[in-house]
Formats: sequence, structure tokens, C-alpha cells
Amino acid sequence: MGKAHSRALRELRHLDVPLRPELVSISGRDPESLERARELWGWHEAVTDWREQIEDERIGLFVNAGPNALHAEPTAAAGRAGKHVLCEKPLGLTAAESHELWQEAERGGVVHLCGFNYRFVPAVRLARELLEAGELGDVVHFRARYLQSWGWDADPALWRFDRAEAGTGALGDLGTHVIDLARYLVGEIASVSARVRTVIPGREVDDHFVATIEFENGVLGTLEASRLARGRINSNVFEVNGSRGSAAFDLERLNELEVAEGRSFRRVLITEPDHPYMRFWWPPGHIIGWGETVVHELAHLLEAIAGEHKVAPYGATFEDGYRCAEVVEAILGSSESGQRAEVSYRP
Amino acid sequence: MGKAHSRALRELRHLDVPLRPELVSISGRDPESLERARELWGWHEAVTDWREQIEDERIGLFVNAGPNALHAEPTAAAGRAGKHVLCEKPLGLTAAESHELWQEAERGGVVHLCGFNYRFVPAVRLARELLEAGELGDVVHFRARYLQSWGWDADPALWRFDRAEAGTGALGDLGTHVIDLARYLVGEIASVSARVRTVIPGREVDDHFVATIEFENGVLGTLEASRLARGRINSNVFEVNGSRGSAAFDLERLNELEVAEGRSFRRVLITEPDHPYMRFWWPPGHIIGWGETVVHELAHLLEAIAGEHKVAPYGATFEDGYRCAEVVEAILGSSESGQRAEVSYRP
Amino acid sequence: MGKAHSRALRELRHLDVPLRPELVSISGRDPESLERARELWGWHEAVTDWREQIEDERIGLFVNAGPNALHAEPTAAAGRAGKHVLCEKPLGLTAAESHELWQEAERGGVVHLCGFNYRFVPAVRLARELLEAGELGDVVHFRARYLQSWGWDADPALWRFDRAEAGTGALGDLGTHVIDLARYLVGEIASVSARVRTVIPGREVDDHFVATIEFENGVLGTLEASRLARGRINSNVFEVNGSRGSAAFDLERLNELEVAEGRSFRRVLITEPDHPYMRFWWPPGHIIGWGETVVHELAHLLEAIAGEHKVAPYGATFEDGYRCAEVVEAILGSSESGQRAEVSYRP
Amino acid sequence: MGKAHSRALRELRHLDVPLRPELVSISGRDPESLERARELWGWHEAVTDWREQIEDERIGLFVNAGPNALHAEPTAAAGRAGKHVLCEKPLGLTAAESHELWQEAERGGVVHLCGFNYRFVPAVRLARELLEAGELGDVVHFRARYLQSWGWDADPALWRFDRAEAGTGALGDLGTHVIDLARYLVGEIASVSARVRTVIPGREVDDHFVATIEFENGVLGTLEASRLARGRINSNVFEVNGSRGSAAFDLERLNELEVAEGRSFRRVLITEPDHPYMRFWWPPGHIIGWGETVVHELAHLLEAIAGEHKVAPYGATFEDGYRCAEVVEAILGSSESGQRAEVSYRP
Repeated sequence: MGKAHSRALRELRHLDVPLRPELVSISGRDPESLERARELWGWHEAVTDWREQIEDERIGLFVNAGPNALHAEPTAAAGRAGKHVLCEKPLGLTAAESHELWQEAERGGVVHLCGFNYRFVPAVRLARELLEAGELGDVVHFRARYLQSWGWDADPALWRFDRAEAGTGALGDLGTHVIDLARYLVGEIASVSARVRTVIPGREVDDHFVATIEFENGVLGTLEASRLARGRINSNVFEVNGSRGSAAFDLERLNELEVAEGRSFRRVLITEPDHPYMRFWWPPGHIIGWGETVVHELAHLLEAIAGEHKVAPYGATFEDGYRCAEVVEAILGSSESGQRAEVSYRP
Repeated sequence: MGKAHSRALRELRHLDVPLRPELVSISGRDPESLERARELWGWHEAVTDWREQIEDERIGLFVNAGPNALHAEPTAAAGRAGKHVLCEKPLGLTAAESHELWQEAERGGVVHLCGFNYRFVPAVRLARELLEAGELGDVVHFRARYLQSWGWDADPALWRFDRAEAGTGALGDLGTHVIDLARYLVGEIASVSARVRTVIPGREVDDHFVATIEFENGVLGTLEASRLARGRINSNVFEVNGSRGSAAFDLERLNELEVAEGRSFRRVLITEPDHPYMRFWWPPGHIIGWGETVVHELAHLLEAIAGEHKVAPYGATFEDGYRCAEVVEAILGSSESGQRAEVSYRP
Repeated sequence: MGKAHSRALRELRHLDVPLRPELVSISGRDPESLERARELWGWHEAVTDWREQIEDERIGLFVNAGPNALHAEPTAAAGRAGKHVLCEKPLGLTAAESHELWQEAERGGVVHLCGFNYRFVPAVRLARELLEAGELGDVVHFRARYLQSWGWDADPALWRFDRAEAGTGALGDLGTHVIDLARYLVGEIASVSARVRTVIPGREVDDHFVATIEFENGVLGTLEASRLARGRINSNVFEVNGSRGSAAFDLERLNELEVAEGRSFRRVLITEPDHPYMRFWWPPGHIIGWGETVVHELAHLLEAIAGEHKVAPYGATFEDGYRCAEVVEAILGSSESGQRAEVSYRP
Repeated sequence: MGKAHSRALRELRHLDVPLRPELVSISGRDPESLERARELWGWHEAVTDWREQIEDERIGLFVNAGPNALHAEPTAAAGRAGKHVLCEKPLGLTAAESHELWQEAERGGVVHLCGFNYRFVPAVRLARELLEAGELGDVVHFRARYLQSWGWDADPALWRFDRAEAGTGALGDLGTHVIDLARYLVGEIASVSARVRTVIPGREVDDHFVATIEFENGVLGTLEASRLARGRINSNVFEVNGSRGSAAFDLERLNELEVAEGRSFRRVLITEPDHPYMRFWWPPGHIIGWGETVVHELAHLLEAIAGEHKVAPYGATFEDGYRCAEVVEAILGSSESGQRAEVSYRP
């Protein structure tokens, strides 16, 4: 994510956004690889202690793209120090920690965004707009799954398999994305019934979860994530069905949205000038890539910092990061108890 | 289904099966439409009381394709009378009734088949064979859904919406198919967590259900069925992921199976002479239709009656019909209780 | 094709058509396999000399599904004898022979149909209806190709590779289908520039051809057929682009038509009751197979014999078979001369 | 293209390439929009006369992304001045002009690349590598088409419709891409039979062409391009069939390659670290966009300038640009003469 954020920040110096970012300082633990990153990715300085950045008056926006266990302390400090802050998902290792980060950012009065970048896929934003405009009628069903397969052959030493570093596995890494998309597209989640499973013996974190969910508006849905689905590389798929129509999305074909308004689906290429975010890019049919979703996310954040709009509802705030964490805990709780778990949110 | 079974029986008079069916007698309640059906579909006689057929010594196979509420009595009577019997799904209106039908058929010593015709889609049979042969490794995940959309605009007077006639809605009609496919492909279901929902006000039966399931072998999965998914006409979709590969199927493209053995999916057209059931049909690439699945089902049943093989495991017996009914009841129970429901099966 | 026509004729005894066919007599050269076919396919009698059938007063419709070299003589005789006649494509071995067959049938005053069964795919008929209704505007482009791959591994003794039996190879077998669809959907072909090629050494007939065509209405297009396209099993694909929209079809998914009316394509499942020929079959989404196209073809022919409509324009007459043959000859001529060949048609 | 090249050059300052570009100077005719472009796209200077750049000793690489009519003079001057040069396609307005540009660059001893950027789509490069490695056997067929639809509703004042500015229409704009891909994947084109057509009344340039081609190695193929294919946005599609397998590509899904090695096609997502150019980007399944193809093209050019490899065969040189132009002229000639045109190339 460091590479993707660096590239997006550089790119935004050359796009039509109200603030032009300077790449002041990058931090990391290993001096050698840090300097390589600084030099390659175009940062002015590199520091081995993020605290220096918190105290650096030149810095207005703090981007935390570190491993999950390093989200909380620097992110909280940035908020306290009055720096706007983007923190990668999952926000904290627990719902409590996530709530604290949200509160800290609010108390700091800063603009905060949690890195659910799939909200910034043009097709996903368009799905949200279709829903808001009532084009699909009242939502009745939602289903989403995020399937990858690298978990079969992965290096066991990876930080993503370390419970202390990562917290959870497929649930926190992939599941949080589908939880956020569910909330973004349909609304707040009221209850879950779930199973979380570690398939590979000896692995500290989960490989797979399944859940049924009920939204506060009564809609039912299913969620699933896995790192063990052979043949699925990065298959983040959702479908929402409404009383008038449906929309279906697949991240491996992120420039497309399947939209049913009558009894059949149209495959819409989301590359027209009037499609979300496409003013930044190319002529129709000249598709964009995953990296561009991070550009859109940071553009949205810069516009929010410039006061053009709020981060919410089209971007995920720390409140969204926190609420997602409550759903994660409800999923874990339901898996253990065997009971449907109501999701409760602190104010 | 009467039309489909009649056509399949006629067709089987001209295919290479060990028994050549005679279409002795068709029964129905309304004399006028019954006579029309008899004449058009090629039956020798028509009777308004199925009891006549039970007593008719010329009849060796009794096919029950009536509405759900008319499954139990004639099917039980046929079994008692020593007639082989095919009963459409869902077998009975309850698990208890289904169990009784199974026991009755066993006591009668007859060959019994429950009409889960999707086992006889060549691509589905091939998926099962790939799994048996270990081509996909150990199964780790399963997901299936059966989505239709006609429920939005349907005639409220339809028997499918009448609780007394139909028992349940999407669950019994579509859900039983995906439950059977789950059992057929992965194994016995041990527990479920589910929600069942009537969306359309005033409707007596459910429109939608979602469930997470755990199989006895520990595999987790999701099931869903709906009659309210705009843009989905007959979208019976499953995917099974194993440690070595995956297979994915969609009934709207029933001649295809997507198979991943390495990191990508191949789209295999299941129309080669060495593919299941294709010895009956056309040259490669000349696809078959839904109606042919009923031909395969009845061919399988005739072969079983001729002693060439058992109905199980490739066909669904009344035991399968009964076990499916237990899963249905566990789904209904879990939806009400909010708890994971263990599925228990009578011996 | 004998199997497919037999099945279709039997099927039509149980569908809503104005004439109910009797399967009077089948002919063939080898008595043993003929008797097997008679018995399995449900014909009353078998004769080894088709001339007996020509003289048989019980026979009203003569179906010629023999190898290409056996199309002319029996078909002409049937027409002369006043029997309605269906002759498989290609009609004759040459344009001259085809023209003679057409004239003979006209002189005999019989109803004649040339077996271009893909006109009877519901999606293809719907494409034609969309074009007639102006839904796609004025046609500007057409492209079609028919790709198979069995030619790589085929038995060299097959009659399809014998020039005397087959006339041509991919061109006559597959190419005539795309020529007929081009004429059916867009109009008469005025000129062609083509290359015809035998790829496999020693083969007597062509494996592949490519052509550009101009229609009489000025539309340009491309045609291609091959038996050597690895991975393509029965890939008969066309696309027609008009000033208002487009339609695209693939025989391997014959229940679907891709229709663009705005800037994106809808995937329409052609299985609704109001879709062409679907009154014969199943509920929406329950797809039909290739064999059913022959049922529709024969239903259309029976309706024409009953006087309900003419064979043209929705079915192909012998005139269409003849006109197709002229295009074939123009393709062969252009391939040899290296020049664009005007297609000329006898009156 | 100016925007795309500017972005790619900036991006390459932060990727692992042997030369790090400086964005010295941009030129343009309108001072106001030029200054806006300079400022937004990150160029140090802007000049209204490209001749200043030719004389500027700081400049080592001259990128010509202007309208077609402005390719020749500056490109020739750059070559003469010893500057490496990238010129957008089509290289010159005629084959003669293209040949002269090639000769000029050779005489200048500079590295030259013609902007056929689709060679740098990872999937296209992989298709070439599969062919080179013999994975698909001997090529037997090739077909390609490039369909767009904006021509229906376009502003008539666009330079692309001005014969003096653009030379040709769909042929030069889209057709040259498919001609180059044909040559890249299969080999030199020996002859063509073609039709070129202006459909929209009053338009100075062509909207559509169709062609059959024969390669020097005897392979036959078809080419087509149009700006009037409703529903097709940027549909640059090719398929190559060999004796052992096939590959199929669609630019609207540029991260995918369909590969048949047995009798079915696999959909391969070209996003693995070992896939061409993907070392620059993201984890598997995180797709790239059209803009990245320009990055790859310029990376390839920088590596060639640094002496790591030649531009050919994986990049298109001015020789490729010239040879493409000869095919274009043969297409125009054949369309007028109605005869197959041999393509002759100057030495």
C-alpha cells in the first residue's frame, strides 16, 4: 500500500484537485529499505520514527499504510496533533481500538478517512448512485464475497498470518472490504450469523468465513471471504437486488458494472466522461486499473480537506472503520456462540 | 413437470435404455384439461382418480409430478402397491412426511427416485465425478444460490403461493435444489444458520432465504434462494473450491462447467461424446436443453429398475428427499430461533 | 441429421402444430444399420431404395438428410412427384444443380425448405424481428464466423473429406450456414472477395475460408469458417451493427442474444413465453438445445404445408439454397482469380 | 496522447528503469492551453515551436504525440538532429512519407519507436511469447477487429474527420493497430483484399473497412475497423489459432488472455509477478489500466536507449510504422481496384 499511496499522491500533483500534495516524509523501520523506498517513490525525506512526522509542522496529512498492528498509535497521535489522517483498513485491531481512533480524530477536529478504497472504484460509486436515485427500487437482497487463492502456497512467515501483527486473517483483510461495501450500498448491519474457520493447520489466523446478515432496514444478505479459493485471484464480487433492478460487480473486471433494469443485465463499461472519477482519465473504453482507485480515494480526501465536501458518505470515515470493526467482532462472536449476534454500536 | 415427464418418457422409447416405457395412463383432477393433456402428450388413457392407477397391474412405474400437497398420499400408495416411483421434489410437505414416504417405499421394496433433476445435468454430474476422482483435491468451500425474479409480477392465485398447497415458497421450490446439490457434491449437512423471509406483503410463503451451512466433513458454505432477484431468470449457480481446484456452474448455461485446476478457470463445454449422458445426443458443441435433464433422470431410473445400478449415489432417492427435508426444517428452525441448528436425521 | 429429424417429427406429434406427422418410411443403403435406425427412431417401415418412397402415396413430405452428393436426385424426384420436400444444406453440389432443384420443386408446386436450421434458433429469429422492426436502425456492418476444431484429429475416411461426396469442406458445411444467416439478416449478397484454403496436406476439401462481402444494400461484412480453430467447438458467431443498435449471437450459447440499444450490450435470455417458438417449451430460464431448432424448422414447414404461412421469409426455401450456392461459387471463383467477384443470380 | 505520455514519463521516474526521464519541454500551437498543459502535466518549459526542442541540447528523446499531419516534419528533424524519437501511429500520412521517416531515423543513428502501444499490453506480449515458444503450434488463422461507436454522434469539426489533418479515418486510427498486431503476432502481410467505406454522408474520411489478408507464411486472416459499431466502446479484439492451441484478446478486458491449449479456453488474468511488465505494479488480481501500456512502451524505449535491448521485435520501430503504412495503402488500393493487392515493401 505504501507504493500505491506514494504513486497516487504524486499523480494528484497533476490532476485537477483543489490541493496539490507535497511528498514531505516517509517513515519505516528498516533504514535501508526505507531509503530505497524514499528514493524510488519520490519522497523528500525518510524518518525511522513516525513520531518525527507527528511533530513536523510541514505535514498536514498523515497516511498510515503500515501493518494492522501499527495502525492505532500513530493514527491516534496524528489526530491528536491536528493532522488530517488516512488510515488503512482494518482501522484498529479491535472495535474498542477502532472506536478510540475515531473519537481521537473527532476530538482533534481533523478530516479522517479509512482506506476502503473500493468505494472509489467508479463502478462501485455508480452502483451507489443508482441506489440513491432509486433506479433499482427498494433493496431486497445483497450478497458479496471476496475470494483469493494465494493462501494455499503462501510463505508462513508473512505478517498477514501473524495474529499479533494482523489481528485476523481473511476476515480482517478481505472481509472488512465486503462489510464496508455492504454498509456503503445497503445500510447499517443489525445482526450476523457467521462461521470463521482456519483451514490450514497451524495457521494463527482465519482463512475463511461465511455469514448471513440482516441490515437495519430488514434486508437479508450473505458475506464470505477466503484466501483458499483456487482459480479466484482477486474476486471481490457483489450483487444487490432491488424491487426495480439489480447491479453486480466483480473487482477483476473493475471497469464494468452489470445493471439489470428490466429482465436482463446490461454490461456497462464505466469509462464514459460522465461516469464517476473518469474526468481524470482517458477516452471511453480505455480502462483504468486498481491503482487508480487509490488516486480517487486521495482526491476525495484532498477535496474534503479543502472543504469541498465531507468525507462521508462517499468515502469511509473512521466511524465507518469503527462500525466495520463491530461487525467483525459480531462475526467472531456468532461463530463462537452459534447464535445470531446483534451488532451494537457505541455512540 | 407433467409435460416434461411425458416428453422424456416418449423420448426414452427411442434411446438406448434397457426398458422401453409405455405411457399407460395419466391422471388429473379436471377432466377437460386432463383429456387435452392425454391427447397432446401421448398417453393411452386418462383417469381422474390416481387410485385407479395404483390398482392398475399394467403400471410398473408411478411418476408423481403433482403439486407439493399431492405428493404424499399417492406416492405412499404406489410404494405400498409395489410400484416403482418417481416423486417430484420436495418429497413431502414436512420432514416427517418425507421420512414416512421413504420408509413406505423401502418397505414396498420398490425403486424410488426424488426428482432432483439437476443431478442429471451433464456438467453437474461431471463436477461430481471430478470431486470423486480427487481432481479438485479436498473440498474446502461451497456456495450455491438459486435466483429467479418472477415473484415480483406473479399471479397471487398461483398454487405456489398457497401455504396449504406448496408448504413453503422459494425455500421448498428453489432451495431444495441447492440443498440437494450441496449434499450431492460435498456431503451431509450438519448444521445451518439461516433467515427465511417473506418480502411481498400478504404472501403466505417465503420469497427468500439465506443460510450458512457446515457439512459433516467440516466444510463451510452458503446457500440462498429467491424469487425476487431482478435480472436473474433461472440462475442456479454453485461453486465448489478444493485444495487442488474449483468448479463453477450456472443453470442458465447448463452445457458449461468452469473448471480451475491451476490458477485460472477453463470454460468447458460439456458436449463431448465422453461426457455424462451425451451418448444420447448430438455432435460436440451442439448443446442440449433443460428438458433433456428429465430424460437423463428417467433413463437413470429405468436403468435402476432394470438392475443395472442403484439409484444412489448419482440419482436422489427418497432418502435424499427426506434428508433434504430435514435441512429445510433446520433452516426454518434456525430462522425462528436465531441459533445455529444442528440437523438430525432419523435412521 | 437423420436422428435429429426423426426425433423432431416424433416430437411434433405432441406439440401444437396444424399437421401431426406420421413416420411412414425411412430409407438407407445398408439394410442392417437401416433396420436399427428404423426400430430405434420409430419409423413404421424401412426401404433401401428411396424411389419406393417417391412412389408411396402415403408419403406427403420427403425429408432428405443424406450426404451432400445424395441431395439432388431424390430431392428432384420428390418435387416432381408432388411431395413437399425438406432438403438439407447445401442444397446441391453446384449452383446449377441447386437452381435445377429449386425449379423442379416450383414446377411440382410443392412446399420446399432447405435445412438452414439456425434460422429457427429463437435468438436468431428474434434478431431478424428486431431488424425488421427497425429497433437496430439501418444496418451498417455484419460479421460472422463458424469455427470448429474437429478437423485436426478427424478420421481421414470421413465422407466430409471426400470431394465427390461432400463437394466442398468447411465452406459447404459451415460456410453455407453463415452465408444463409448473412442473407437472412441483412439481405442479398452482391459481391465477395475471398480465400479458400486446404491446410491439412492431402485433404481433398477446404478446411478454411475467409471473405469480405458487400450486400446489395451497400453494407460491408466479413465471413469465415474453419474446422481447425482449436478451442472452438461449435462457434457460430455473428454480429450485426445498425445505426441505432447491435445484436450479437453465439451458437454455443444459443439461448442468448446480446442486444445493444444504447451504448452497452444486454445479455437477453431468449426463453420467455413471448419469444419465438418458446410457446412449445418450458418456463423462463429453462433453456432449450440444438435439437429443438430442428423441431422449430419442421413445425414451420408443417405450418407452411397447412397453408398458415409461406416458408419464406423466416424459413429458407430452395431459392435460398440456390442463392447460397451462388455465393459459394463466387467465393471459390474469387479465391482463384484474386478478384472481387460479383454474385449473379439466375431468375 | 500528450496527457498519457506525460503521465508515463513522470511515472517512469519512480519505476525500475535504467534511465530516469526529465520532462524538459513541451510544445504546442496555442500558448494558453500549452501553458495549462505544461503546468498540469509537470513539464519544466513550454515552447510554441518544436524547432526549439530540436535544437535544445538538453533533450535526448523527442516524443511526437501530435495530430497525424504533424508527424512527419518534426519527427524527421528529431532523427536528423540525433535525438531518439517516439512517434505516434500512424507514422506518416503515406507509405512514402513513413519510409522517409524510417530512413531519416536510421541515418541519424537514433533509437526510434512507433507508438503501437498495444504491443505493451501484458496479455498481448504474453500471446506473442506463447507463439514464439510454440505453445500454440503453427499458426493457421488470425482475425482481428477494432470497433468503436463514437463516430455516430461525434462533432464534425474534429480533426480526426479532416482528411488533411488525419489522412484516413477508422483505417489509420484503429486499423493500423490491428495491422500492427497482425504483423507482431503472425508475421509479414503479403496480400490484402479490402473494402473501405465512408458511411456517414459528407464525412471526408472512412468510417469502416474490412479486409481479408494473407501473410507471407501462408496464414489467412481477416481485419476490420469501425467507428460505427453501436455497443462497442473500445473493442480491439483478436484471435489467433494454431495447430496446438489458440489465444483470444479483448482490449476492454486488457488484463485477460483467453488461452486454449486443449479443447477449451482458460481465462487467464495477466497480473502475476512473472507476467510481462507486471513487476512494475500490484499483487495478483489487482488489474492495470490502459494508461499503463504507455508506461510499458516508454520503459521499453528507455531500456533500448540504455542499450539493454533493441526496440524490435517487442516494440514497433519506424520500420514497423512504415510496413504498416504499406498495408494501409494496399487496403486502399484493393478497395478501389476490386482486386487482391500484393503488398510490396521497399528495402
